[in-house]
Amino acid sequence: MATATLNEAAATDKSAILALLEGMSRAHYNKDAAAIEAVYMQGAAIFNLAPPLTHHGINRQEKQAWLDSWDGPVEIESRDFDVTVSGDFAFCHGFMRMEGKKKGADRRVNFWMRETLCLHREGPGWKIVHEHTSVPFYMDDSVRPAFDLKP
Amino acid sequence: MATATLNEAAATDKSAILALLEGMSRAHYNKDAAAIEAVYMQGAAIFNLAPPLTHHGINRQEKQAWLDSWDGPVEIESRDFDVTVSGDFAFCHGFMRMEGKKKGADRRVNFWMRETLCLHREGPGWKIVHEHTSVPFYMDDSVRPAFDLKP
Repeated sequence: MATATLNEAAATDKSAILALLEGMSRAHYNKDAAAIEAVYMQGAAIFNLAPPLTHHGINRQEKQAWLDSWDGPVEIESRDFDVTVSGDFAFCHGFMRMEGKKKGADRRVNFWMRETLCLHREGPGWKIVHEHTSVPFYMDDSVRPAFDLKP
Repeated sequence: MATATLNEAAATDKSAILALLEGMSRAHYNKDAAAIEAVYMQGAAIFNLAPPLTHHGINRQEKQAWLDSWDGPVEIESRDFDVTVSGDFAFCHGFMRMEGKKKGADRRVNFWMRETLCLHREGPGWKIVHEHTSVPFYMDDSVRPAFDLKP
């Protein structure tokens, strides 16, 4: 392929991956576990905010139960995502702000987390083969997750 | 290239990346900040255990000061790393156990963390362009980092 065509293909891939991120946000807002499950490869290695160290793929029932544990939508805002595509693999990293109110909770949570995704091209689209989501933690005497940071 | 040659090249790349991980462990053990800095691309996006959300590249002086804040070696054991190479990019993820004793601390720390690396081929070797290190946290009433998990 000529360089211009290669650049166009790379731009299309990057747009598709950013669209996947938007789709994940929309699926959280709509509490649609099936739509979330659809973008993950079966058995994907998922390093989540909550234990254990790793989850293997999305369990749709568990994800739906988690989504339903929130009062109203789960809002996710993506920022500063940097996408690298190489052949049939890609990775990206950036920040996500998560906001919502757990059923029975006194107040809303609203914090920024770090997000890394590794993806594999599958058919016309992309699927997540690895996800790493985290917040750092303060290492002073209190040793607590840092929910007050901003990108 | 023939498939056999491609497979050999992929195996060599994977070995090189696993050797990079071993080199990082050795550099921590030896408290050699320069050797750590050498495997990172300048300005690499580093999501570390400690705030802020992201660091940009390794600051050798800060890294050396951190290494010197430990009494004896900083031990890092890698486990279950899965490496994917595609052209001049690669990513890998697995677990690292960190053990050591901070100067002035009453006891040793010893815990498992999750590690994701994205790499770029540079010359004959590889450099880290993105690193994400974390521990999950318990979401019960205590909301504390989970230092007691094992892979």
